[in-house]
Amino acid sequence: MLEKTTRINFLYDFYQSLLTPKQRSYMEMYFIEDFSLGEISETKQVSRQAIYDNIRRTEEMLEEYEDKLMLYQNFLERQKLIQDLEIELQEQPNPSIRTIVERLKELE
Amino acid sequence: MLEKTTRINFLYDFYQSLLTPKQRSYMEMYFIEDFSLGEISETKQVSRQAIYDNIRRTEEMLEEYEDKLMLYQNFLERQKLIQDLEIELQEQPNPSIRTIVERLKELE
Repeated sequence: MLEKTTRINFLYDFYQSLLTPKQRSYMEMYFIEDFSLGEISETKQVSRQAIYDNIRRTEEMLEEYEDKLMLYQNFLERQKLIQDLEIELQEQPNPSIRTIVERLKELE
Repeated sequence: MLEKTTRINFLYDFYQSLLTPKQRSYMEMYFIEDFSLGEISETKQVSRQAIYDNIRRTEEMLEEYEDKLMLYQNFLERQKLIQDLEIELQEQPNPSIRTIVERLKELE
């Protein structure tokens, strides 16, 4: 559950600009400000079921965008490469560094 | 004109997965295979004006996606940073390398 929430938070970071203001509002209340569905329902004066459906649909959309654009996956790969690069940089320069930089370039 | 075509080609590379099959087909014929509007019209049996409108609208959509997600802009910045990194790697490791890697990490 925690892992899913973390993933959704990352996907939200990457793709929030493609969502509607209403979708962003519900997502931020639910995933970032940690309101319950009941609390969002009271605040927004919208049925709990409508909030639930909107958030579920938004989650699906975020996964669809990730299937198409892979921003989160590329981000994770880039972070891993940069971590490798930093380990190498603690040593002297060598061909491994060049290999890592080449892979970094191929990412996009 | 050449510069615009290059930019559209890059935007198309980044965002083609968000377009419809018809949009992709027209864009590839026009920008990649270098067909004229008249030739696409003949091949597809669709009016030249409809092809033109579809391609113009697709270009606008690509620019809207870029405004929101900035994949091309981030790509250019990352390429520049990697280029800097490669120059540094021709020398001995030093604090400049660390600075570049830090900026690379902040990009996303």
